[in-house]
Amino acid sequence: MERRKVYLAMKSVGEARELFFSKLTHRRTKPQEVDTNEALGRVTAEPVFATLSSPTYHSAAMDGVAVRSELTYGTSERKPKILMVGKDAVLVNTGQPLPEGFDSVIMVEKLHQIDDEHIEIRSPVYPWQNVRKVGEDIIATQLLLPQNHRIRAIDIGALISGGVFSVKVWSLPKVAIIPSGSELVDYRKVRDDKTLEPGKILESNSSVLAAMVRENGGEPVIYELVPDDQSLIRAAIKGALDSGADIVIINAGSSAGSKDYTVHAIEDLGEVVVHGVAMMPGKPTILGLIKGKPVIGNPGYSVSSVLSFDQFVKPLLYILQGAEAAEPHKIRVRPTRDIPSKLGIEEFLRVSIGKVGDRYVATPLARAAGSITTLTRAEGIIRIPELSEGISQSEEVEAELLVDEKDLLNTVVFIGSHDMTIDLIADEIRKEGNAIRISSSNVGSLGGLIALRKRTCHISGSHLLDPDSGQYNLSYIQRYLKGLPVAV
Amino acid sequence: MERRKVYLAMKSVGEARELFFSKLTHRRTKPQEVDTNEALGRVTAEPVFATLSSPTYHSAAMDGVAVRSELTYGTSERKPKILMVGKDAVLVNTGQPLPEGFDSVIMVEKLHQIDDEHIEIRSPVYPWQNVRKVGEDIIATQLLLPQNHRIRAIDIGALISGGVFSVKVWSLPKVAIIPSGSELVDYRKVRDDKTLEPGKILESNSSVLAAMVRENGGEPVIYELVPDDQSLIRAAIKGALDSGADIVIINAGSSAGSKDYTVHAIEDLGEVVVHGVAMMPGKPTILGLIKGKPVIGNPGYSVSSVLSFDQFVKPLLYILQGAEAAEPHKIRVRPTRDIPSKLGIEEFLRVSIGKVGDRYVATPLARAAGSITTLTRAEGIIRIPELSEGISQSEEVEAELLVDEKDLLNTVVFIGSHDMTIDLIADEIRKEGNAIRISSSNVGSLGGLIALRKRTCHISGSHLLDPDSGQYNLSYIQRYLKGLPVAV
Repeated sequence: MERRKVYLAMKSVGEARELFFSKLTHRRTKPQEVDTNEALGRVTAEPVFATLSSPTYHSAAMDGVAVRSELTYGTSERKPKILMVGKDAVLVNTGQPLPEGFDSVIMVEKLHQIDDEHIEIRSPVYPWQNVRKVGEDIIATQLLLPQNHRIRAIDIGALISGGVFSVKVWSLPKVAIIPSGSELVDYRKVRDDKTLEPGKILESNSSVLAAMVRENGGEPVIYELVPDDQSLIRAAIKGALDSGADIVIINAGSSAGSKDYTVHAIEDLGEVVVHGVAMMPGKPTILGLIKGKPVIGNPGYSVSSVLSFDQFVKPLLYILQGAEAAEPHKIRVRPTRDIPSKLGIEEFLRVSIGKVGDRYVATPLARAAGSITTLTRAEGIIRIPELSEGISQSEEVEAELLVDEKDLLNTVVFIGSHDMTIDLIADEIRKEGNAIRISSSNVGSLGGLIALRKRTCHISGSHLLDPDSGQYNLSYIQRYLKGLPVAV
Repeated sequence: MERRKVYLAMKSVGEARELFFSKLTHRRTKPQEVDTNEALGRVTAEPVFATLSSPTYHSAAMDGVAVRSELTYGTSERKPKILMVGKDAVLVNTGQPLPEGFDSVIMVEKLHQIDDEHIEIRSPVYPWQNVRKVGEDIIATQLLLPQNHRIRAIDIGALISGGVFSVKVWSLPKVAIIPSGSELVDYRKVRDDKTLEPGKILESNSSVLAAMVRENGGEPVIYELVPDDQSLIRAAIKGALDSGADIVIINAGSSAGSKDYTVHAIEDLGEVVVHGVAMMPGKPTILGLIKGKPVIGNPGYSVSSVLSFDQFVKPLLYILQGAEAAEPHKIRVRPTRDIPSKLGIEEFLRVSIGKVGDRYVATPLARAAGSITTLTRAEGIIRIPELSEGISQSEEVEAELLVDEKDLLNTVVFIGSHDMTIDLIADEIRKEGNAIRISSSNVGSLGGLIALRKRTCHISGSHLLDPDSGQYNLSYIQRYLKGLPVAV
């Protein structure tokens, strides 16, 4: 009964996000003026208007002579006109300014030099012909960039050309990352022989979180490890807020107890808005507010830590800069087998994805929330909704990609009876440093043959003895894979 | 005849790239050891293997008591067993190490406490039940990352957990950017009132190029502006190479003559491999090699500069780091009108893209290679192949996106008779700093009505007088847009 109550109290990812974000009082970081040369990737805090026109003068768009167009009117092959060089016609190269009062350029190809001082023309030009006019690219006062625009390389060109040499942008959100847990060890303090005391774990989450903060336009500060002590945790949070952090993340160890210290510390200093989110991994996420600033208890298991960050801290980093995160790249995949999932909780299933024929197939990896390699080895994540009990191999579902789509071609999909050889081959391939991955799913020999028939794998392991012939596999292949091109 | 020869000698983008890249002798930057915490985005210079297992000890995966599993065999509801706390059964919390010799954990829910020293169990456990074993995540010596892998945030977690605290990566390619052209002015040296001497242009390409270098994982150094003087340009190139630059870019001014200085300087010091590429903008690109290192004459017009960089310097930055650039995001678009293009040259057409109904439509922007705003205002680029004379409004073509796909919903597509009001409205919207863009294409009143009928625009301008009724537009709308829901 007790447990059931806890689950009912849990918020879905969407609910938790909405509730939490609606309570933020500091919705933007402070604006800050940066040199235009340093503005790449920053987000404008106000609309940016040009202060100069570009070009700033009328210039020749061709090599030739600058003229007053009205002087050329009425000219034709039959009625050529002679111009005095230096007076009626001034030699100009592409890009050079037109002399005051001149409004057009006659191409060098159309000129007939008579002597050093005279040229003949045989056709007229109209005003501004072959001229790049003032403001052709940018007119002073025109809007160059709207507010809340992430500055790209090309925008820097428009800013400088428009006379904008510094630009007001939202400050980078400062994120304090406080790792806590008495069992954790800072890798920078490990002895050279890398031996750990028994029961100690290398702390890696803070480094991953810092990198994710950077990837999403924030400025991370990793704090010293805090042991499991509520007053020390409280002091660390206060210190982080006092130092001007826009977001504080406490990454509790995964041991029992640590999480409670975080909750109580946030309660002491402010408000716990959400405690527990219906997501897996990532359930023990805590979303709190202290003096209007987000203070987040990020779960200790490495995969939970990453996925919780993705759902809560990442969007926050964009909100604080008035920008939106790019959508993750998604593709449609077919699961290689039925995948049950717990009702009432959204599951973030790590999958290995390969291309078989013209279809992407996804094999689930281990679900262990503490295994970072279930993320690094995954090519994608399938989100199984809260109200689903799982997904079936007969339906296509969406997967968010963790790699470039073209890298999916590097995955060899194995389904069938478990075969040591496959593991050994995979090992050898990877030992050579190759990026080729073998995704293997053990479903028994017949399951493997059926997967081949359904074209959801590249290779299959089979150990089926035919008692009639005393032969392995061949009769089964003939029966189940009739008509398919198969190598044995 | 002369001109024709020049065109025939020009290489296509693909040919130029293949020829140039095949001649590089320095195909990688030097490897460099970086702290794992600083490794985000860097590319591994060798395969990376774990030196530690993770976890490093057997730990409880549940709260409960650690036991020797064999002691529990044969236990059942009918045959419960009593264990001595501290001897047969040791209290453990999740994450805590198992005592030496213990191999499984009984969940706290399954225990029946008899007194402080005795507990009763009613079912057996099997070896390693409820235990997180040594190496469950990572086994020492296993491959963590292959060579030439771009390190993501999650990879940093795997590296630290696997005992890899520093990692060998390819150095960031150093790119020297040398702006040259006597007409150019460094914006950092412009007076506060921002007045330029007549004939002077603000130099912005080097800042754009530096930002693009950064975006693609290189380390830019912008050199002082060099005037149009061949020996000074030669000296700047030599200086850049001597300082250890992996790539040298000379960005010549757009004035006639400047380009020749670059070509001659490269010829003096090394080899010009390609002079002129069949792309527009970007034609005057020069690809050279000096002592095996790439030295590139990047064209002076701002758009040419960006597009040439994209085709030649950008892939080079990835080659030098053993990585591949992500594919640009592409979508299918329908041009709002026929777009002719020059045969024999690949055109990079900047287009404004909007969504009308469920289709993306693309309107070409001005083709001026010197107008950076034709890039910043564009949502995409359509590449019109060398051997095509243009694209037709009746066919869908591919466009490479310059913005997020969701931003395309912010574009209002106007096609029709030119109407000042539209420009004024667009101006007002943008003055407010809104990101909404109006892409307007002037094709006359009837053309506009037809575009509405073909559903290639959202709004249309029309000034058609019906001489029979003396009314504007209405009879035409009835005739051409019969059955369509239209607001007038």
